[in-house]
Amino acid sequence: MRAGHGAGHGHDHGDPAAMRPVAEHAAAVAALLHPTATETVPLAQARGRVLAEDLVSPHPLPPFANSAMDGYAVRAADLADVPVALPVAADVPAGRTDGPPLAAGTAHRIMTGAAMPDGADAVVQVEWTDAGTETVAVERAVAAGQNVRGAGEDVTAGQVVLPAGTLLGPAQIGLAAAVGVGAVPVRRRPRVLVLSTGSELVAPGEPLQHGQIHESNGPMLAAAVDDAGGRGELLRFVPDDVEQFTRTLDDALAARSDDPVDLVLTSGGVSAGAYEVVKDAFSRTRSEAEPDHRDGRGVAFTKVAMQPGMPQGSGHHRGPTGDVAVVTLPGNPVSSLVSFEVFVRPALRRALGHPQPDRPRVRARLAEALDSPAGRRQLRRGRIDAVAGTVAPVGGAGSHLLAALARADCLLVVDEDTTHVPAGETVEVWLLDG
Amino acid sequence: MRAGHGAGHGHDHGDPAAMRPVAEHAAAVAALLHPTATETVPLAQARGRVLAEDLVSPHPLPPFANSAMDGYAVRAADLADVPVALPVAADVPAGRTDGPPLAAGTAHRIMTGAAMPDGADAVVQVEWTDAGTETVAVERAVAAGQNVRGAGEDVTAGQVVLPAGTLLGPAQIGLAAAVGVGAVPVRRRPRVLVLSTGSELVAPGEPLQHGQIHESNGPMLAAAVDDAGGRGELLRFVPDDVEQFTRTLDDALAARSDDPVDLVLTSGGVSAGAYEVVKDAFSRTRSEAEPDHRDGRGVAFTKVAMQPGMPQGSGHHRGPTGDVAVVTLPGNPVSSLVSFEVFVRPALRRALGHPQPDRPRVRARLAEALDSPAGRRQLRRGRIDAVAGTVAPVGGAGSHLLAALARADCLLVVDEDTTHVPAGETVEVWLLDG
Repeated sequence: MRAGHGAGHGHDHGDPAAMRPVAEHAAAVAALLHPTATETVPLAQARGRVLAEDLVSPHPLPPFANSAMDGYAVRAADLADVPVALPVAADVPAGRTDGPPLAAGTAHRIMTGAAMPDGADAVVQVEWTDAGTETVAVERAVAAGQNVRGAGEDVTAGQVVLPAGTLLGPAQIGLAAAVGVGAVPVRRRPRVLVLSTGSELVAPGEPLQHGQIHESNGPMLAAAVDDAGGRGELLRFVPDDVEQFTRTLDDALAARSDDPVDLVLTSGGVSAGAYEVVKDAFSRTRSEAEPDHRDGRGVAFTKVAMQPGMPQGSGHHRGPTGDVAVVTLPGNPVSSLVSFEVFVRPALRRALGHPQPDRPRVRARLAEALDSPAGRRQLRRGRIDAVAGTVAPVGGAGSHLLAALARADCLLVVDEDTTHVPAGETVEVWLLDG
Repeated sequence: MRAGHGAGHGHDHGDPAAMRPVAEHAAAVAALLHPTATETVPLAQARGRVLAEDLVSPHPLPPFANSAMDGYAVRAADLADVPVALPVAADVPAGRTDGPPLAAGTAHRIMTGAAMPDGADAVVQVEWTDAGTETVAVERAVAAGQNVRGAGEDVTAGQVVLPAGTLLGPAQIGLAAAVGVGAVPVRRRPRVLVLSTGSELVAPGEPLQHGQIHESNGPMLAAAVDDAGGRGELLRFVPDDVEQFTRTLDDALAARSDDPVDLVLTSGGVSAGAYEVVKDAFSRTRSEAEPDHRDGRGVAFTKVAMQPGMPQGSGHHRGPTGDVAVVTLPGNPVSSLVSFEVFVRPALRRALGHPQPDRPRVRARLAEALDSPAGRRQLRRGRIDAVAGTVAPVGGAGSHLLAALARADCLLVVDEDTTHVPAGETVEVWLLDG
């Protein structure tokens, strides 16, 4: 039998006054991740990416004056006395690149979007004419400039059309394409290695023996990383001991040195248990007196004043290609995902330059009373009724109820100094949107 | 010179009374698309997909009674007279599959998540003991069941943990994994062929000649399809004539017969212009008297009572492998994307079984007055201030201002019978979120 339990533990109790405030741990995690580098991707792969540099239009948009209507390009002065018949001297479909100039007293048949001929200053729409092809009878006059879209009316040459930090959706991709940009500089998606290491864990799809459970944190956290804009990659192995854990991790990091890992994310293995390989591996040479040292095992384990999600860790691991950021999350699936929401997701999105690193936050009235521990920030899973403006907790405070988590569409936040919130009171809500 | 203009046209005016109501055209587009088939994907690829069938847990969760604490598994009755010292007869780390039963009067050292030994009915947390490894001194009694998570407390065997139609995010993937499911049945993502066919269009990244513009609708609509949960694929070609257009489209459809195209999406080429190959190709054998016939060119072109986005079309094309749905959108980029939002996105998401086919809709106070044409539903681009509860139009009513569209985060909806909305009045807002 091994040595007795250490002082640290992962239970859901403890002295709140000695715990790290949520904001302090969030800042520590955010500080681990640096802004990601720039890479250039074709527009077809740009959706959901964050623009790394201002996008400047090299030319005006529209690039040339063009017709806003199907009709006839004319000189407005030639329509002073309507009705009037004008010879149709040319045909200007959209895309015609060699359109001749317009002679006085003539009209060119023109399509929407086609370049205005030199000499023309207005378009008379087909509905105001007899739609003639040799000669056109025009019934109503137009003013100079009428039905003409001027060059640069939408965008001028040299204009910043999309500032750095823009999230690229369909409209932004359309605008980039319209100004002629076929590939855009975007921030690299942070690469996150999600470790699944518990000896009790069996991959989903494999049969269970008594005492084993299916591993859920790995697929869940890898999906959460992807959802945040990163690239989650699951590495599943059961370490025999600290040396083998470190060797396996270092091999994985070395194999990815061409496109290095930005963050190693673990869950579980960090409470007081006697078999806590992850904690041992990341902390065994760490000095309590030097929590920030960089001797290769610089992960600080801490209790954070929140429920769920008290046992947290953050720091660096000295890998084969340099220091790599490490965040350790609690092992319980609900604690793990809630901790990811509070600490990791905003940090990843900040590293990505995302314009909205945090979840949308609203306030809603509580549908039923709830209690919360003194000195700890509670994050309850909830369902919001946007029409009624109310939010109801789902699944109670218990951190192991994964089925309730999967029904939640928001988190309810109860502050550290609040121990009871009556029904009808307003609380902060983070929207998890689908 | 070709024949004169036809009766139809794509200009942003016309008789509203003769136009098709927005809801009617939306229903026609929705009716084109059938619910997509089911395919099974591994959890690692399931994020963002819609579950096709109820997911039933094959076993309870937790699968066995386990410890909620690091501590000692005991019989509560043995702690009737605390303090008491008990021999530590076994060690039960999480994942141990061969734990022996607990003999009366003994304790097993147990870790969080480890299976409760037969005969034990409670766990005393390590903090209430001397943490001994040979013998443990227990200071406080526990009740039967204390610190034990019962089998099936989260999920019972046979329970529907995720109903069909669930959108799979990290929590839902975690739950599927936890109940042992490694791959899930999801709805196939609709495959959409986006055609870019204008003779004036040049691919982004290529140089422009006078009269040409960079093609933006294709990349924009392909991204919008992806954003809606479909698979957008851009097919860019300049048809010489109707025959060559049809041949190129049919070749593309035939080449995809293994994974057939669900929808052909075009933009432009459907107004009154003399060079409207797309419209000609889809409508040339169509009889006005039989708008719903299926002779292979069953696309009906119509004017819809909205601004922007009046010229619309929907129907079927008889391709080499059968009928394929066709939706034709207006060519102007802003009209095109707004029309996609109104008609195509909800239809694609319905076909996918998405639980929320429509954009989130809220109401907000208008920051400035706006005008809207009588008899047509106006969709203005806007920016919402969620804190103030206000929304401001961006870029005016002009449908060609792509830069303004790219700054918008919502659409404002002004009803058909409203021609003026004063500042401060409440309007419907569709949130485009990112």
